[in-house]
Amino acid sequence: MDLGVLFGIIGTWVLIFWALLMGGRMDIYIDVPSVILVCGASVTVMFLCFPAARLKNFIGVVKKAFFWKNSSIEKLIEDMVSYAEIARRDGILSLENTTKDIEDPFIVQGIQMAVDGTDPELIEQIMTTDLENLVDRHDTGKGMFDAIGKYAPAFGMIGTLVGLVAMLSDLSDPSSIGAGLAVALLTTMYGAMISNAIALPIADRLERRSSEEVLYKTIIIKGVMSIQSGDNPRIVEQKLRTFLPPSQRPVEDKEAA
Amino acid sequence: MDLGVLFGIIGTWVLIFWALLMGGRMDIYIDVPSVILVCGASVTVMFLCFPAARLKNFIGVVKKAFFWKNSSIEKLIEDMVSYAEIARRDGILSLENTTKDIEDPFIVQGIQMAVDGTDPELIEQIMTTDLENLVDRHDTGKGMFDAIGKYAPAFGMIGTLVGLVAMLSDLSDPSSIGAGLAVALLTTMYGAMISNAIALPIADRLERRSSEEVLYKTIIIKGVMSIQSGDNPRIVEQKLRTFLPPSQRPVEDKEAA
Amino acid sequence: MDLGVLFGIIGTWVLIFWALLMGGRMDIYIDVPSVILVCGASVTVMFLCFPAARLKNFIGVVKKAFFWKNSSIEKLIEDMVSYAEIARRDGILSLENTTKDIEDPFIVQGIQMAVDGTDPELIEQIMTTDLENLVDRHDTGKGMFDAIGKYAPAFGMIGTLVGLVAMLSDLSDPSSIGAGLAVALLTTMYGAMISNAIALPIADRLERRSSEEVLYKTIIIKGVMSIQSGDNPRIVEQKLRTFLPPSQRPVEDKEAA
Amino acid sequence: MDLGVLFGIIGTWVLIFWALLMGGRMDIYIDVPSVILVCGASVTVMFLCFPAARLKNFIGVVKKAFFWKNSSIEKLIEDMVSYAEIARRDGILSLENTTKDIEDPFIVQGIQMAVDGTDPELIEQIMTTDLENLVDRHDTGKGMFDAIGKYAPAFGMIGTLVGLVAMLSDLSDPSSIGAGLAVALLTTMYGAMISNAIALPIADRLERRSSEEVLYKTIIIKGVMSIQSGDNPRIVEQKLRTFLPPSQRPVEDKEAA
Amino acid sequence: MDLGVLFGIIGTWVLIFWALLMGGRMDIYIDVPSVILVCGASVTVMFLCFPAARLKNFIGVVKKAFFWKNSSIEKLIEDMVSYAEIARRDGILSLENTTKDIEDPFIVQGIQMAVDGTDPELIEQIMTTDLENLVDRHDTGKGMFDAIGKYAPAFGMIGTLVGLVAMLSDLSDPSSIGAGLAVALLTTMYGAMISNAIALPIADRLERRSSEEVLYKTIIIKGVMSIQSGDNPRIVEQKLRTFLPPSQRPVEDKEAA
Repeated sequence: MDLGVLFGIIGTWVLIFWALLMGGRMDIYIDVPSVILVCGASVTVMFLCFPAARLKNFIGVVKKAFFWKNSSIEKLIEDMVSYAEIARRDGILSLENTTKDIEDPFIVQGIQMAVDGTDPELIEQIMTTDLENLVDRHDTGKGMFDAIGKYAPAFGMIGTLVGLVAMLSDLSDPSSIGAGLAVALLTTMYGAMISNAIALPIADRLERRSSEEVLYKTIIIKGVMSIQSGDNPRIVEQKLRTFLPPSQRPVEDKEAA
Repeated sequence: MDLGVLFGIIGTWVLIFWALLMGGRMDIYIDVPSVILVCGASVTVMFLCFPAARLKNFIGVVKKAFFWKNSSIEKLIEDMVSYAEIARRDGILSLENTTKDIEDPFIVQGIQMAVDGTDPELIEQIMTTDLENLVDRHDTGKGMFDAIGKYAPAFGMIGTLVGLVAMLSDLSDPSSIGAGLAVALLTTMYGAMISNAIALPIADRLERRSSEEVLYKTIIIKGVMSIQSGDNPRIVEQKLRTFLPPSQRPVEDKEAA
Repeated sequence: MDLGVLFGIIGTWVLIFWALLMGGRMDIYIDVPSVILVCGASVTVMFLCFPAARLKNFIGVVKKAFFWKNSSIEKLIEDMVSYAEIARRDGILSLENTTKDIEDPFIVQGIQMAVDGTDPELIEQIMTTDLENLVDRHDTGKGMFDAIGKYAPAFGMIGTLVGLVAMLSDLSDPSSIGAGLAVALLTTMYGAMISNAIALPIADRLERRSSEEVLYKTIIIKGVMSIQSGDNPRIVEQKLRTFLPPSQRPVEDKEAA
Repeated sequence: MDLGVLFGIIGTWVLIFWALLMGGRMDIYIDVPSVILVCGASVTVMFLCFPAARLKNFIGVVKKAFFWKNSSIEKLIEDMVSYAEIARRDGILSLENTTKDIEDPFIVQGIQMAVDGTDPELIEQIMTTDLENLVDRHDTGKGMFDAIGKYAPAFGMIGTLVGLVAMLSDLSDPSSIGAGLAVALLTTMYGAMISNAIALPIADRLERRSSEEVLYKTIIIKGVMSIQSGDNPRIVEQKLRTFLPPSQRPVEDKEAA
Repeated sequence: MDLGVLFGIIGTWVLIFWALLMGGRMDIYIDVPSVILVCGASVTVMFLCFPAARLKNFIGVVKKAFFWKNSSIEKLIEDMVSYAEIARRDGILSLENTTKDIEDPFIVQGIQMAVDGTDPELIEQIMTTDLENLVDRHDTGKGMFDAIGKYAPAFGMIGTLVGLVAMLSDLSDPSSIGAGLAVALLTTMYGAMISNAIALPIADRLERRSSEEVLYKTIIIKGVMSIQSGDNPRIVEQKLRTFLPPSQRPVEDKEAA
């Protein structure tokens, strides 16, 4: 698990609670009906936006956002180059034994198809379709948090309007106006917090995560295609290393070239 | 019908009405002229935005949003593979009998063309055009709810401005100011509710629905093309299974490969 | 003329005027300088946004939005199929006589080029360029109403700020504060009305209109290309019918297939 | 120079100043520090957004927006057809003499390359790259005005917040509250005026200008390619005329066809 | 370092501080808890939006924004043409000696591959992948500042809501209302300043910087491809000069042509 995300979520909410404490007594910020309206409606509206079948994946999406096994791209490139060397030295069939030790099922599937002598175009088509559908599923996951980020403030505003109308309809007791306004504003505050301190940052994170996974799988596809076409391991390395930022490319890069 | 959508719409509005009840007497939230202005103008403006011919489809669009026959992609892939097996075993002409039992007219049309020996390019062109036009029609349906989601709050704001100007023009009776403001705010509240608790979530839902149907029909097109080109059923299965999320792929997937 | 658009524009404004009447005396909503500022600046700013040569087309754009000859796609497909039959039966040259009875110059031009034996690629290129430029011109028309929809509320807000500053600078007479605020809000109200009850809905309408005309002309291009390549009328029909929603496809569709 | 743009800028500002005069005494709308903050920060922030080298072109961009030589597309097409006639009649080398009389360096460059017998693919590549880079430079020019249109209101809002905090911190003299609020609002008003009555409309205008120039140069590229391939002038005319709106196409169009 | 950016950042903040001083006593604008909330939450939320591994590059991104070695495109084109001349005169292998004097590793890599006789398609593929990944990394850098520009005002608004609720909950001392409101508004003011005077302009700047670097590297790729294919240096020059704005093209351009 990425410790950064833990620091991010805890740090942000410590700051928010600290701000509430600075504002005076904590209890003025707690209004149970307002919490129920904003949180409840943010949940129920999700059932309107998404088919129930997709919402089941919600927990999985949350897990993905928080438990992010940071795959090393350098390691991946090294692995792909070593497979290329095996294929070059002992023939592509010898990769069959190697696949047993590979964890990533996407690599296994690709190499297995290459070993089976599947048509290169078909391999690329299957792996690319797989990648496209992954992006689709990621988009739905991100879409769920985007929806919360959109509807939570909207229901916050609706709650505030409801409170304002109630307060304005009965101004007979001037001393209660301030308290009424304060309570009315709470739903807007809750909506803004849910949106900006939870939903939207996680949606942003999922987007990055998706683009990292796409990069990772693109390297795999390029590597498998290159291995199958019998490329020299040096060429395979040169092709895949372009995916690394220049600063991370090994020093021998230049000398070797 | 997806029970989720029922839960979504009822749950959201129960929460809203509960919030209104918490706000005090229910009657302060009801102002018939305000309802007429916001709802009425949201309807009439639709006749400006859309040609009348398209608005006729409005009921159909609503039905589509709520009664969503959740087609199983696994089932579809199994079916397509079984057609591939029949075509491989008994020749493609033998699929003619099979089409009688298929419900989806899109599959029937595709297989029928394959049986008729239509040129593969023409089959792909016809089925793809069909799919593109489906997306177009879906976009119009989504566009209707997007338009309501855009104009309802706009007319809500116009109503509030009308009310504010009326109230401000006659401040002679200070005790009526609060009530005047409350009524003025009601149109904004109605607009926000129509937009965020009905129109925009349904537009979101229609978008998902469209992308699911596109995925479904894309699988059919790929399947028909693959069957016609005489692909081995195993290859057909491998190609189509890439559309499933990895978790839903059958376990024998790996063993079989 | 589409009666819907008439209903839309009249209905929306009847509702708005009715809301004004409900607000009290009609005269409090009329402030001639405010009208001049918002409407005037919305017009003059158009001369900044668009070259004068394009603004000349403004009347034409308005006409297009309101007088929308709803071309029947079914009728068009029938026509194209009948031309295909003539070409198949009597040779493509015999279509020359047919063109005299065709109203749409786009069809005439296409068939004429086919009759003249123009190179198919050139026909497609010329007709597609024509279509692309049509889309460009439509975009400019839509852009004009989008601009009004953007700048009218902006100048409404500027007018309100001008009024607010004037009112706040002289608070010596408290009884005039309300009236001053009311007048200041009028420009915002005018801007919101022009934008949401005229400009933006018409921009939306022009967008639909454009996409309908594009669909219409795309069918013509596909039809002409199909006729020229000597396709069987049955194939022409099959190709073009994919542009119809399934519900509008003739019943014999399935039987015939 | 397009007289429309002069009318647009003068008309808009006459209306704004007239609104200020209607608001009462002109001096209440003038606050030098507010002007310095909004205008100054809009300028300095440009140096953050754009490299200094690009800002040098600012004057050039302004000139382009105002002094817009409205090139006639009809005239251009006529010219291209006449070049095609010369090339057809006297050979493409005879166009060398013609280039001396052509003003547009883009046409000269294209024809010169055709005369030099440059490879058609290379001609198209060079001319298209030229066009793409033109679009890039136009985008930067538009981007400058978009940036002013974005940051001027933002600094206006910051100025208003600064003024509000100052006013609220010292409420000891109630009679100065109105004046304080009025001054605070001035920065917002300035920002809205700079954005909506100058920056954004000019950005819109530059966008149109760019798309017109792209259309113009696209016609030149198509014309040069057509001339070099030895097309019949009639074909050249037919190809290029599709860029005209139907209403502007000569009457003989149909008869000649 | 571009002096413009220094002028931009210092000038903008001098204006802001000057505005604060004009607003009265400086101390009313300083509220340490508000600063901690807005700045702190803008930082912690970044750990939610971005994986920690990427945030490490933050300092590098800032450096890139400020220390922008303004590479001269004219100089680059001259260099590429001189390499083309060497390759033409002494054979492509003679470029090996030249690479020692070239600073830009991207040019070195390209020419080295050309010298090594690498397949042109592979060279283009490797260099283009490199460029695409550069754009990806730039996008992440820009995304960081966009995120600050989005969340700083959001937490500013949350802080203001917290302050408003605190103030409204206790209206017992009317004399403190103004000060309470002033403090509440400070977080919004801080958020707007961070967003509009730092984060968003730097994000804009990074975008320009990225597009300049892309242009620069595109010229290198085109140049290397052209050199390898043995193009005449004159052709190389003609191809690359199209990337310059017409005004910067040398005068001899026309005469030479």
